[in-house]
Amino acid sequence: MGVTLHDVLDAAQRLAGEAHRTPVLTCESIDRIVGMRLFFKCENFQKVGAFKFRGATNAVRMLADDQAQRGVVTHSSGNHAQALALAAKRRGIPAWIVMPRGAPAVKRAAVEGYGATVVECEPTLAAREEGAARVVEETGAVFIHPYDDDRVIAGQGTAALELYDDILGLDAVIAPVGGGGLMSGTCIAIHGRDPGVKLYGAEPENADDAHRSMEAGELIPVDKADTIADGLRTSLSDRTFAILREHLDGLPTVSEDEIVHAMRLVWERMKIIIEPSCAVPLAACARLHPELAGKRVGIILTGGNVDLDRLPWMGA
Amino acid sequence: MGVTLHDVLDAAQRLAGEAHRTPVLTCESIDRIVGMRLFFKCENFQKVGAFKFRGATNAVRMLADDQAQRGVVTHSSGNHAQALALAAKRRGIPAWIVMPRGAPAVKRAAVEGYGATVVECEPTLAAREEGAARVVEETGAVFIHPYDDDRVIAGQGTAALELYDDILGLDAVIAPVGGGGLMSGTCIAIHGRDPGVKLYGAEPENADDAHRSMEAGELIPVDKADTIADGLRTSLSDRTFAILREHLDGLPTVSEDEIVHAMRLVWERMKIIIEPSCAVPLAACARLHPELAGKRVGIILTGGNVDLDRLPWMGA
Repeated sequence: MGVTLHDVLDAAQRLAGEAHRTPVLTCESIDRIVGMRLFFKCENFQKVGAFKFRGATNAVRMLADDQAQRGVVTHSSGNHAQALALAAKRRGIPAWIVMPRGAPAVKRAAVEGYGATVVECEPTLAAREEGAARVVEETGAVFIHPYDDDRVIAGQGTAALELYDDILGLDAVIAPVGGGGLMSGTCIAIHGRDPGVKLYGAEPENADDAHRSMEAGELIPVDKADTIADGLRTSLSDRTFAILREHLDGLPTVSEDEIVHAMRLVWERMKIIIEPSCAVPLAACARLHPELAGKRVGIILTGGNVDLDRLPWMGA
Repeated sequence: MGVTLHDVLDAAQRLAGEAHRTPVLTCESIDRIVGMRLFFKCENFQKVGAFKFRGATNAVRMLADDQAQRGVVTHSSGNHAQALALAAKRRGIPAWIVMPRGAPAVKRAAVEGYGATVVECEPTLAAREEGAARVVEETGAVFIHPYDDDRVIAGQGTAALELYDDILGLDAVIAPVGGGGLMSGTCIAIHGRDPGVKLYGAEPENADDAHRSMEAGELIPVDKADTIADGLRTSLSDRTFAILREHLDGLPTVSEDEIVHAMRLVWERMKIIIEPSCAVPLAACARLHPELAGKRVGIILTGGNVDLDRLPWMGA
């Protein structure tokens, strides 16, 4: 039966006092450039710097006490890793994070800073999954998938719920699509509140599995997505694909240059730090202009974790 | 008799609908590092990216119609230049900005983008003042000094007024000191509301004219201040020095390295973009720790205009 608005509302209750209710910012000069009235939901200000803390916290808080005490495990070197580590810490339970050998030291340090145990594996999906399965077997920890999980999807949906409840009369909402967890939660929250709001996913051209899957009517994973939007390199699961098929009005894709340009525009005009994945929906506005001109459009800014020593507009 | 709380309150009324009421952000992880409870008043989100829009707008709005129609003039290549240009544009009057030859093209373009006329001069203070005087003579435009002006000081004070009114029970407020316009307005607003709040100015060691003037009991301008905090290279005027002497509880100074470190800390932890000048009060918290440990401290984040191609932590 899947995730419903009811689950998102329950998640919102669990997150009260745990996650930030992030602000919604506007920017007149970007509005003029894009030709829409944009409302930016700032999950870059969320704990651990990304919306992922919502899904991880909802999943961790839903565990029964006897389950929870054995801890949680996931495989991720991205924001979900930090999110799960902090969510576990706040509940006072152990966490294991399976990370590929060679993951940036700063990411490892962040996870360990939250008290989680890093388990190294080879840099393949099979090795990651195997690594996580081994931890489950040895410790009895509960596996929390980064996106293919109803609890995680419901948690991610709370960002869109807050956006909808804070901004009257939204015509459309755009979110980036990687594994589809955020987009799925967004679909369920927004259409649960108002089925008339248009919903768009946005993808890098270089990681356009959702776009291609939607056109083909069947799941077509991308293999090695080479995009600067590192949070969007993963592919949909059956679960998230089904939700997106039911709800989305469109799935525009954008080039790498368009992503960097949109990212820099937000830095310069809004004075906030967003990561490349986060800039994809704004970049997609140019594609959506005919249908959304002059409309009130919500955009989920997903995160702000960037390496300040290696910005995309710096020379190599 | 000088500027009073009454003038700041009048300025706040003039600014309603003109300037943003900027948000006040907090950051638990920086609080833990600093050992205080900090409240950041985000003037980096202000129009033109800096608090300067407040003072410029108050000055422009206070002009009688017959004065105003002849326009306004200033000398500045910094945020005041853009601020005055936009304030004039919004009132529909001309503006002339005297800028040293060789000022960055992007600053010139920003001012011209607001419809102001750039007048070039030699890069000396004498040449700037002469250039502005000539425009006044030729056009009858009103000169609006970047900080040595009661209207400007009253306008800058509205940022602290909002901070005080938004955050209950502030123990202290810290602002950076360049020419002293913001600090003066902050003193008048905060002590007008509550004389018991401690007030601190913060300066770069390399532009410590206010610190030295305060110790000497007389105005000692710095000549060529060499600091990354480019908004703080100017020296106090008699007017601002008198206000600071009356109100300040301290004037800590910080090194260039401390400024860059504090700037990067805000970028990393708060995901907002601030310029180097803006990081000086946070850097100064280490100096103020004994007296302010555990206190509720307001910090004015003054602006977010940085060259994203040349960040201070990038190699030369």
